[in-house]
Amino acid sequence: MALLIGPKDYENEPPRHPALRINAKEPFNAEPPPSALVASYITPIDMFYKRNHGPIPILKDPSSYRLEITGLAPKKLSLSLEAIRSLKKHTVVATLQCAGNRRTAMSDTRKVKGVGWGISALGNGIWGGVLLSDVLELAGIPCYTRRSANGGKHVEFISVDQCKEEKGGPYRASVPLLQATDPEAEVLLAYEMNGEELTRDHGYPLRIVVPGVIGARSVKWLASIDICPIECQGFFQQQDYKMFPPWVDWNNIVWPSRRPLMDFPVQCAICTPSDGSFIKTGTTVKISGYALSGGGRGIERVEVSLDGGRTWIEATRLQSGRSAPSNSYISDVDEQREKWAWVLWEYSTTMTPPTTIIAKAVDSSANVQPQKVEDIWNLRGVLNNSWHEVHVKAEPQSIQSSL
Amino acid sequence: MALLIGPKDYENEPPRHPALRINAKEPFNAEPPPSALVASYITPIDMFYKRNHGPIPILKDPSSYRLEITGLAPKKLSLSLEAIRSLKKHTVVATLQCAGNRRTAMSDTRKVKGVGWGISALGNGIWGGVLLSDVLELAGIPCYTRRSANGGKHVEFISVDQCKEEKGGPYRASVPLLQATDPEAEVLLAYEMNGEELTRDHGYPLRIVVPGVIGARSVKWLASIDICPIECQGFFQQQDYKMFPPWVDWNNIVWPSRRPLMDFPVQCAICTPSDGSFIKTGTTVKISGYALSGGGRGIERVEVSLDGGRTWIEATRLQSGRSAPSNSYISDVDEQREKWAWVLWEYSTTMTPPTTIIAKAVDSSANVQPQKVEDIWNLRGVLNNSWHEVHVKAEPQSIQSSL
Repeated sequence: MALLIGPKDYENEPPRHPALRINAKEPFNAEPPPSALVASYITPIDMFYKRNHGPIPILKDPSSYRLEITGLAPKKLSLSLEAIRSLKKHTVVATLQCAGNRRTAMSDTRKVKGVGWGISALGNGIWGGVLLSDVLELAGIPCYTRRSANGGKHVEFISVDQCKEEKGGPYRASVPLLQATDPEAEVLLAYEMNGEELTRDHGYPLRIVVPGVIGARSVKWLASIDICPIECQGFFQQQDYKMFPPWVDWNNIVWPSRRPLMDFPVQCAICTPSDGSFIKTGTTVKISGYALSGGGRGIERVEVSLDGGRTWIEATRLQSGRSAPSNSYISDVDEQREKWAWVLWEYSTTMTPPTTIIAKAVDSSANVQPQKVEDIWNLRGVLNNSWHEVHVKAEPQSIQSSL
Repeated sequence: MALLIGPKDYENEPPRHPALRINAKEPFNAEPPPSALVASYITPIDMFYKRNHGPIPILKDPSSYRLEITGLAPKKLSLSLEAIRSLKKHTVVATLQCAGNRRTAMSDTRKVKGVGWGISALGNGIWGGVLLSDVLELAGIPCYTRRSANGGKHVEFISVDQCKEEKGGPYRASVPLLQATDPEAEVLLAYEMNGEELTRDHGYPLRIVVPGVIGARSVKWLASIDICPIECQGFFQQQDYKMFPPWVDWNNIVWPSRRPLMDFPVQCAICTPSDGSFIKTGTTVKISGYALSGGGRGIERVEVSLDGGRTWIEATRLQSGRSAPSNSYISDVDEQREKWAWVLWEYSTTMTPPTTIIAKAVDSSANVQPQKVEDIWNLRGVLNNSWHEVHVKAEPQSIQSSL
């Protein structure tokens, strides 16, 4: 286990795609241009947002790596990568989204604390690995266990990276045991992303993927899994990634008063055209973006408005892994497999710039996005899912005539 | 089975509490005054809303009643009430809410079709009975089955009442097999409500309770349970209780284009003071109400505004079955048992009438209520969960001086 180490400096960072927008250099936090998100249903690895709290860990000797299953596990395990790869492989298509996605827009209203993310702190991946429920069964905890015989109720994932917030300690997070042991929740011990071995930026050699939940619980560079009687008491579970009301500030905050964020609310954003871009009057413009909801709740519809929210048009849901027959919802349970993934959508129209394009989504539980960011403002700037607006300008006459 | 019958006329309706507000007489649809809802965490049986589509069924001979488990069940069952009562008893505290709750307010914006409900088409009950997952296990379908060996994917509940919408057929609805066989989903075959035998209005002798889901799936007066390859094709699943976008009207509606409503979005309402009531300037007024969310998502907080939504104050969550330590969320999974139940809340303050009191809630997945009903308007008037407003007037001087 000591062979997977979290460095204290940034001397050995992996290479990154130059098109990424860097929001923080050390630790490295970056997101792709929004147009890259709608270019494909599955986000390419190099275009997937990078969210780190310290230098990227290094695995010195893969053959010596061991994942330790500890704590209240009836059978303690120490699993090599080979042993994990020999277990039944499971694949899940899931969108990971940072809880801080769209934070910059929240900060524009009133300053919040945290990395300034645009609208691209998310990506949709095909994750390959082993169901955590299968591994926990090996450790003596049956599927669908709310509370194990010896009092285990939560499963903590412990990394090796050196986070400045934890005063040099590693990143860690937990989920309830019931979720971890539920095969339908599809919590994954992943060693592959989009059919390739995990890259260092995304958690090599092993990471957790908790579908439908904020990215912060999908711990990378996994060293051990601890079965605990209480939820993770670490910084990122107890003093971060919580949503406070708008009236709570840094003077009156009481961290234990709010629960750690788990599954996220319904969300959408317009990826093209980009904010501030020039549009020629009369040309057909393709408006496109993403929509998703947490907890396995699907997207019911996406609405677009060009008149400030007076009237709305339904956007077209693009084909993805699942084929949605037109004019019909999917009722067959076998076809509802991609419930953890985003929906890409588009709507083509002509418009008269300057104008504002607004988008909002409704999820399968009929939850909607709030209109104004002020109503959900919170000091950590998490879960900004207010209506997304993009302002487009009229292309100047000189440019228009030169084309 | 023939001994449980759905009459064609209204000659044998049960007695009802005179305080109920009757929204439709035949079939009988009525709700309690809002103040009755906040009077107790568990809603008394006679104050529980009554939602019917036909005359109330009559059970002639309880000893001859049989519940039939049919269709793709590996073992067909025919269960007497005695046999059902001999199975392991399970109790669940769950709020049932009609999808049409708060429909009248939606109709005020633009006319919708359906029974005109105020804000009280919901109630919180203690339901006693047998887990449906236990009964399906007896029928040969193990817990947590998404698709049975012989292709069953949905569980249909068939009643005996004569519904005018079904042209004389009985009321029916279905849920996915996975939900029906999931003990944690706590779908119940209930024979008791609040510790007493079910009353005729609430489904005697046997009803389904689907926690966290619109009331329409909690079928009353159960005759049979059918394991099916597809979801229920009946009127109430396929041509009602669906949510369409605001731009769909009765001329362009395509029923198969939208999914049947299942779990509902975050909701809250102010029960006291009542809309239009008189308040004396300077006196302390207790504002109180309910909040709930679907799918087992708990209530994170309830906010109240007295200045049109400019500023908000958090309401106090009242103690219920679970005891919430002050300034602390509930992290212990054993204590999260009442996740299907509403939260009652209150906030006491002085105010200067005339004024408007607004309330809105946030659920544990950070979903919020929409501000304006226009944004979620739909032709069937379902799931109106917009911010709730109550207007209070200044007590006339003459009344004030005479007190």
